[in-house]
Amino acid sequence: MSKKVAVILSGCGVYDGSEIYESVLTLLRLDQRGAQVQCFAPNAPQLHVIDHYRGEEMQESRNVLVEAARLARGNIKDVREGKVEDFDALILPGGFGAAKNLSDFAVSGANCTVQPDVLAFAQAFARAGKPVGLICIAPALAARIYGPGVVCTIGNDPDTAAALTKMGAQHENCAVDEIVVDTERKLVTTPAYMLAKSIGETAGGINKLVDRVLELA
Amino acid sequence: MSKKVAVILSGCGVYDGSEIYESVLTLLRLDQRGAQVQCFAPNAPQLHVIDHYRGEEMQESRNVLVEAARLARGNIKDVREGKVEDFDALILPGGFGAAKNLSDFAVSGANCTVQPDVLAFAQAFARAGKPVGLICIAPALAARIYGPGVVCTIGNDPDTAAALTKMGAQHENCAVDEIVVDTERKLVTTPAYMLAKSIGETAGGINKLVDRVLELA
Repeated sequence: MSKKVAVILSGCGVYDGSEIYESVLTLLRLDQRGAQVQCFAPNAPQLHVIDHYRGEEMQESRNVLVEAARLARGNIKDVREGKVEDFDALILPGGFGAAKNLSDFAVSGANCTVQPDVLAFAQAFARAGKPVGLICIAPALAARIYGPGVVCTIGNDPDTAAALTKMGAQHENCAVDEIVVDTERKLVTTPAYMLAKSIGETAGGINKLVDRVLELA
Repeated sequence: MSKKVAVILSGCGVYDGSEIYESVLTLLRLDQRGAQVQCFAPNAPQLHVIDHYRGEEMQESRNVLVEAARLARGNIKDVREGKVEDFDALILPGGFGAAKNLSDFAVSGANCTVQPDVLAFAQAFARAGKPVGLICIAPALAARIYGPGVVCTIGNDPDTAAALTKMGAQHENCAVDEIVVDTERKLVTTPAYMLAKSIGETAGGINKLVDRVLELA
């Protein structure tokens, strides 16, 4: 029986949405391991739109679900339609979108809140004892999903780690090609582009994360 | 000595730009093989913008270079700045952007023209005897770059193959996990999402294409 995995995206582009390489590497590994994947995203406006060529904010508005659809070749659903009973596991790639669209961590830090539809879907996996993988900056959501004591990593950035600790998470430093596993909660995290210098480096940690999530499912 | 490879992108998203999985798989394999990569795109408006969630045209305008920058994490240049002497090889991923922004093949078929900056850069590689890889629908540009007799594949779609033949190309049917090589011209082509049913299938042909392009460089 192939495992069914939900993937929540947050737009399409590292500076205002899902980190593209992390998302594609996640989808590639899931496919190579024979998993069935359904992508989701919140149907909500992006915090803002960044011109990735100039690194400047653009004066326009884009929708998270519509832009994330680019990463899914159109095969994506509003996260409100997600039912935890249809899936064995959940994975959230990183990119600033996780901290700007799936939550407001980029603005509010340790006082952040998670987008309500995303929080409801992710907490349903936690309650059901189904494994969750959080990549790059997405572990900023871990304490809100699981509550205090959850073990996770965002690599080794002291300020980001301190914010996660303030929220109640237990942060562990981690190398780019490694994962941190909270065995009790079945939460798997990896630093990816919090540390990675190249797409190849990113693949190492993400492949391990996907493999462990599937093992736990 | 690591090989230097230029990659021309055409936006970010299968229906109006570069096919994201093909582009990322190309960049991943190049990195895994130790190549140095510089991404380029034409600084020009997209033909149009497609809402990838609904499959409908959107009433807005986007720039090919600015959107392609998402696929390159900002590390991208206007194709006008590209100098063939700085590179050992060139690769163009597919996606409708190759037929809408790098050329007008999607509109004009066998009467298509190639975007002038892209044509000049690609023809410089051809003249210099440096290898070129064209993925998915990008081989629609082959006859314009190389002239009559060039051998290439877009998979096995009869109408598309007929259009390429009309332009002077010599089309060979090809499986999704294989490549066609025009040895004389050092042109390597693979069908990718002209045939692929999954991201894993796409990786097979693209890995072979990248490997062959690097061997020829």
